[in-house]
This record gives sequence, structure tokens and C-alpha cells, in this order.
Amino acid sequence: MGDKILYKNAVGVYVLNDSLNIIENDEAKEPQDQQKISQKLAKKYTKLRAPTIAERQKIVEFFSSKKYIKQLKETNMTLTGKAIKESVKEDQLIIQSARLSEELEKELATLGKRLREWAEHFYPRTSEKISDHAAFAMAIFKNPKIDDLGAKPSINDKKMINDFAKQVQQIYELKNKAEDYAQTLLKGYAPNFFAIAGAKIGSKLLIHAGSIEKLSKMPASTIQLLGAEQALFRHLKNKKSRPPKYGILHEHPLVLQSKASTRGKVARVLADKISIALKVDFFKGKFIGDQLLEGVKKRFSKDG
Amino acid sequence: MGDKILYKNAVGVYVLNDSLNIIENDEAKEPQDQQKISQKLAKKYTKLRAPTIAERQKIVEFFSSKKYIKQLKETNMTLTGKAIKESVKEDQLIIQSARLSEELEKELATLGKRLREWAEHFYPRTSEKISDHAAFAMAIFKNPKIDDLGAKPSINDKKMINDFAKQVQQIYELKNKAEDYAQTLLKGYAPNFFAIAGAKIGSKLLIHAGSIEKLSKMPASTIQLLGAEQALFRHLKNKKSRPPKYGILHEHPLVLQSKASTRGKVARVLADKISIALKVDFFKGKFIGDQLLEGVKKRFSKDG
Repeated sequence: MGDKILYKNAVGVYVLNDSLNIIENDEAKEPQDQQKISQKLAKKYTKLRAPTIAERQKIVEFFSSKKYIKQLKETNMTLTGKAIKESVKEDQLIIQSARLSEELEKELATLGKRLREWAEHFYPRTSEKISDHAAFAMAIFKNPKIDDLGAKPSINDKKMINDFAKQVQQIYELKNKAEDYAQTLLKGYAPNFFAIAGAKIGSKLLIHAGSIEKLSKMPASTIQLLGAEQALFRHLKNKKSRPPKYGILHEHPLVLQSKASTRGKVARVLADKISIALKVDFFKGKFIGDQLLEGVKKRFSKDG
Repeated sequence: MGDKILYKNAVGVYVLNDSLNIIENDEAKEPQDQQKISQKLAKKYTKLRAPTIAERQKIVEFFSSKKYIKQLKETNMTLTGKAIKESVKEDQLIIQSARLSEELEKELATLGKRLREWAEHFYPRTSEKISDHAAFAMAIFKNPKIDDLGAKPSINDKKMINDFAKQVQQIYELKNKAEDYAQTLLKGYAPNFFAIAGAKIGSKLLIHAGSIEKLSKMPASTIQLLGAEQALFRHLKNKKSRPPKYGILHEHPLVLQSKASTRGKVARVLADKISIALKVDFFKGKFIGDQLLEGVKKRFSKDG
């Protein structure tokens, strides 16, 4: 026959003869390296073919020997580790922290109410005076004098309430930290997108899309309606209900500040600019975010 | 006429003549004191009557004068304050803290999962090794070396994850504190009930009933089925479904440890004893909790 056999695995690229002895090998591990080597070998050995099923079985058996298995495992681990490292993109960290602050916000509503209900036994006047949950937690954490109207707590009661208030207060702090962190990352990772969408709307859009790549490949009309899926499908099913004009974007200051009649228009232009900003960011262009934002503002400055 | 008029308000008890001049007054404020005074006055003035509607209007006008209004307001505040103070019974604090630890448990499940998902980018091996969320939070809080498989975090990333882990860990601590607090209060407030029901089941029954008073007035059969309301109503509506044998009590160690066939019986006897313990506690009797628990244990020691 005279043909040579080309075989690749995670450890390298091999050329074997008909007797299945290795006559040349290269320890290329990366897929792109292996491809280059294969092309080179194809030039060197004119009659290079893939192994038959029977041959492949024997080759696999050969590589299952103790020496090769260890090497295979190690290479596999290195490649997996590299894949993990590469898979952590900053947008995933932004999504994690934005999700965290959403969750903490929900929890703070529950815990804030419970703290108030509990502390009111001892501090009814303080509770009446301070309606904001965060400020109330701070006040109780500072261990104020018991109200003249309140019940007298034991040392134990006071300690428990105090610990509780401190924790609520610290969860507020963590929420702020998570928001700052997401904002810093977003600003560095997608500066144009950040400049026009802002941290809050930006993270919400990102959570919804799942990654900056997916978001940057969406048409502007999809971005405009992101978060309004239910309303959209309601409209598609039953033409009597109106199509939505905006989803997450309705919380954007420019949309909120406009007259109800122009909000749909503002959302559309905003989505256009966001879509451009995302493409520039994802394909690593220069900073044009401020121009884009200015563009939307100017356009709607007359009819507010 | 010669009749005298008796008039009471929050400030005191008054006897007036036909011209509506005060001829005797007593500054009794408490309802029970006012009643005693009224009885005394009824003996002194044989012909004592309530004011007519026209008279009452004039008297109220008189007491609306500046001097009296201030006094009335002050008295009212004192009485309200006293009512608030008396309304805070320890069972309400037990319910508050038991509810808090239930909420924290739910939140820890969510936050623990999020922390893991996030930290896994950097510490995949640590996450694989430690499956318990609390222990994992503790490990991450201690700022371990980044896994060889993990991505390399920036200082900012590391700080954020660390703050998050610390918070999760502190929420675990708060949950433990709330549980200890509830247990201490319950032990002091209802020692017999605590001895037989335990802290966990005890607080759950208390949350369900709303107060120790309500719980102590429930028949044993109600206590047995507390928490199984849905199953009970399902049975009442549709006789095909079996009646429930226990509600919250199914989590009691004595019920859990018995054979499935005797669990209903154990729950019934347990509910009986809990009902007795509650009555002794609520009507301030002596400690018999250990005897009651021993009674249930002995009774089921043979047929397990």
C-alpha cells in the first residue's frame, strides 16, 4: 500500500505506517496548531489517509497504555482549565453582580419590613418619624434610647434587634458595592454602551440577553422591546391589544422625561443608538458614546 | 329635680348638678378604678343618673376648653403607651425571631447558590470539594489561593467576591443568633411546652397559632393537625382522600423515629401532652415538661 495514516488526539498529531508504528509525531495540542501541522504533513506525505475503523480501534488501544493515558489526562485538564479561564468574560461578572443587587433589593424589602415590625415594639416613635427602611435600620443599629411609648426590652432583646439592624444595614452596603462594581466593569468593558444606556438599564439589558455578544448582535428593534416580551406576544396573539413601544428602556431617563406621546419615538431612537454603541464596543472601536447620547438628546430637545 | 349627674372620661369621674357645675371629681384614669369610684359615688348620691343627650353635649363642650384638652391628650398618650407596653408579650418576640430565621434560611439558599455560581469562575476546585453552602462561603471569605483551573480575578473582582462571601457568612450567623434567641425566650416563657415540643416545632406551632394564648386554648386534636389544613380540607371535601394524621408535628423527632404505622398514634399522644404543657405554662403552673415527654417516650418504647 505505502499509504501513511494520520491520527490526532489531545496530546498530538501522529503519522503511522501500515504496521501502525509511529513514524512521526508532533506534540501540538491546540486545535489550530494541529490543523497547521496536518497541512504540513499532507504536503510531506502525499498519500496520507485516515485510519480505518479496525485500525483506529488498535491505535486507541495503543494510546490507552499507562504512559499515554496519564499524558492524555494531564493535557485534557490543561485544555479544560484554559477553556474555563477564557470563558469568564467580564460581561458574566457584570451579570452576576447585577443579579445579586436585584436579589438583595428584594430581600431588603422583606427584611426591612420585618425589622420595623419588630423594632416598633420598642421604638414606636422612631418608626413613625423615619419612613425609609435603610435610614430606620441605621437608626436602630445606632442603639437609640427606647421611646417613652415603647416597651422596655431586656438586654437580650436589645442585642438581638441591634444585631438584626446591623445586618440589614450591611446588606444595604453590599448592594451598593455590587452596583458600583457592576458600573465600574461595564464602564471599562463597554464604554459606549454604558455612556448611553447607563449602569442600571445597561445591566438589565445584559441580564436579559445573557452576554454582550448576544446583545450586540440583536437588531435595534429587538433591543427596544427587550423586557416587553409578554406584551408583544399578547399583541401577536390578539391584535386587539396594542403592540408594546418599549420594554426595559421605559425606565431610561430620556424616555421617562418625555411626553407620553413621544415616548415610543424616543425609545426607538435610543435603541438605535444603543445598538450602534454595542457594535462599536463589541468590535473594539473608539469611544463615541457621548456623541450618540447627545444625538438622542438634541433630536428630542424641541418636542420634549 | 335634685338628681345628680355622673360623667366619666379619660381624665376622671365627675358628679355634676343640674346646672352642670362639677360638685365632685376623682382623677381615676384606669377603667377598673373608675368603676370602683362610680360604685362608691352611687352609694353617696342616691339619685345619680347619666346626662341626657343635650347635657352631654354641653359637658363635652366644657371639657373641650383648652385646659382640659391638654390634660385629656396627655392622659390619652399615657394610656396608649401603657397599652403598647403591655401588648408586647414574649410570644410575639419569639414569633418575630422564628419568622426571621425562616426568611433568612430562604435567602441563604438563594444567596448561597449565587455565591457559588459566581465564585466558581475563580475557585472551581474549591466549589467541587465543598458542597455545603455555609462552609463554601466561609472558605471563600477566608480568601483562598485561586485554583489552578480558575480564571485570574482582578483585585476588584476578588474584593467583591470576598465582600459577598463575608455577608453570606454573617447572615448565617444572624440566623443562628435568631434561633438561639427564640429558644432562650421560649424556654423561659413556656418551659413545659419547650421541653416537649422543642424549639423548632414549638416556634412553628406558635407562628401558626399567632400567640401562646390562642395555642393553649386549642384542643389537642387541632394542635395535632396544625399545618395540615390543606390535607384536612381536601379530605372533608372529597372523602376519597385520607384524613391527615399530623401537620407540623410530623417533623418532631419522636414522630420521625417511629415506624410509619404508629406515626399517627405518636402524633396524637404528643399533641395531647403538648396541649397539657401549654395549659400549665399559660396558667403559670410548675414544671412538668420532662414528665410529659417521658410519658410519650415510655408509651412508644415497645412498639417503636
